[in-house]
Amino acid sequence: MFHLLDIIGTLAFAMSGALTAMSKRMDPFGVYIIAFVTAVGGGTLRDILIGRTPVGWMVDLEYVFMISIGFVLALLFRKRFDQLRTSLFLFDTIGLGVFTLIGLEKGINVGLHPVICIALGTMTACFGGVTRDILCNEIPVIFRKEIYATICILGGLVFFGLRSFNLESDIMYLITSIVIISVRLMAVKWKWYLPTLEHKS
Amino acid sequence: MFHLLDIIGTLAFAMSGALTAMSKRMDPFGVYIIAFVTAVGGGTLRDILIGRTPVGWMVDLEYVFMISIGFVLALLFRKRFDQLRTSLFLFDTIGLGVFTLIGLEKGINVGLHPVICIALGTMTACFGGVTRDILCNEIPVIFRKEIYATICILGGLVFFGLRSFNLESDIMYLITSIVIISVRLMAVKWKWYLPTLEHKS
Amino acid sequence: MFHLLDIIGTLAFAMSGALTAMSKRMDPFGVYIIAFVTAVGGGTLRDILIGRTPVGWMVDLEYVFMISIGFVLALLFRKRFDQLRTSLFLFDTIGLGVFTLIGLEKGINVGLHPVICIALGTMTACFGGVTRDILCNEIPVIFRKEIYATICILGGLVFFGLRSFNLESDIMYLITSIVIISVRLMAVKWKWYLPTLEHKS
Repeated sequence: MFHLLDIIGTLAFAMSGALTAMSKRMDPFGVYIIAFVTAVGGGTLRDILIGRTPVGWMVDLEYVFMISIGFVLALLFRKRFDQLRTSLFLFDTIGLGVFTLIGLEKGINVGLHPVICIALGTMTACFGGVTRDILCNEIPVIFRKEIYATICILGGLVFFGLRSFNLESDIMYLITSIVIISVRLMAVKWKWYLPTLEHKS
Repeated sequence: MFHLLDIIGTLAFAMSGALTAMSKRMDPFGVYIIAFVTAVGGGTLRDILIGRTPVGWMVDLEYVFMISIGFVLALLFRKRFDQLRTSLFLFDTIGLGVFTLIGLEKGINVGLHPVICIALGTMTACFGGVTRDILCNEIPVIFRKEIYATICILGGLVFFGLRSFNLESDIMYLITSIVIISVRLMAVKWKWYLPTLEHKS
Repeated sequence: MFHLLDIIGTLAFAMSGALTAMSKRMDPFGVYIIAFVTAVGGGTLRDILIGRTPVGWMVDLEYVFMISIGFVLALLFRKRFDQLRTSLFLFDTIGLGVFTLIGLEKGINVGLHPVICIALGTMTACFGGVTRDILCNEIPVIFRKEIYATICILGGLVFFGLRSFNLESDIMYLITSIVIISVRLMAVKWKWYLPTLEHKS
């Protein structure tokens, strides 16, 4: 189940990367690379930081496979993208939840402090999108608009809160994902966002 | 003493990152991340390159703590920033000196050649600022204006020069930091900078 | 022979980085760093991803040496650059071929799947240029115009095709480089490029 969601998240992130790259008039190779980086960038940074090499996607070909499928789907359906926006958003939200959990789990396995585990979970979920935006020469969108990463942090807090009750892993995973996914859905529906900080120098 | 200066440098770098991010109208999360990356980016790159993982800030929570304080201070005092400019500049210069030394030391511990140690020291001191500028979508300032990194290289040369006299570590550290800090202060006071290279293609 | 080509590729990549940086009006330090990153960026990313640390250029000083020569050459000859364009292009193409092969080889040594080895080879050859463009605040050129990376992938396919015939390493290397180099020359001569993908959102 967990693995299935990981696959869905990878697919959704790859599609979101491909669509962004196409809007920048890149060639197919560029589009593929951006799709790739969006999907595995977060996990790659996480694995490098904790010293888990070769990094995840190099030893498990499923990621390359799912990204290729995401790339092809984005190519095929790019004209009907508006109709797909809702499904894509849903997939992306699932990816957000699952990737946060995977990051939390890897951090715990290496014996890191909860604060650092939450940072790892947030990075796993968000860094792919940051790299996508840098490669497309834009200020990363998560630094400016959506309360995207904040939700990952919240999810991490919920997870460690539940952990102190000695619940079963599966139940903690389930509740944490539900929290992340539902807060994101509410945030977008009711347009929650953080205020911009300004500093006149 | 050395550790105290590391803490002061981290704080100053975090504040400089936060203030830059606020000038770009980012939300609080974005500001925090830029502060974080500015403070630990250099050390993270260094640790990854020499294979020292999990990287420094993941195993020593003091960094997260100091960055959070720097973030809060930058928020609170952003309106009075002009009056603080001198103190902040001084902290930043201390950070420059200390971070260079830490990089040099780690390189020596891994048995690398002095040239590579100097590169590591320079990276430790400068890469955080480079990442800050990339995330804010600007050409890194150290490539264009200030003789920032050049001072780190100079500090590294002084350090290895002193080392050939078999001085005590503490004395070498002290002299090297004084050189770095005073050259930077003079460079800013008398507006020393490297000429721009131009190439018409 | 292989090593000599590696050296020529490093030199050419360093010069191409230096020339790009000079066109952005950077100071000498900035120009040197961009030259450095363009030359070793690909190999550094590869080594980090497979966990081979300290990374290549830290333990073999020849790279630093060649990059410094490339930097000086670029400085000296920047006014006569137009006359050198052809030689530089040739060096760059040799670098492309050699770096792809080195990446393929390292991947095989770590026991990775051919698909991942091809990705490593392509990264080794292309990531330096990508970093150069990001640091110069541009959308990486290989994502938009030239069929640069596609040629590396093609080279990788040829390599693994030949490998199934149990040829000697030297012969496989030779044929693969000839394919990469000649396809690139033809691609530039006859202006082959991939069509841009567009997506109206």
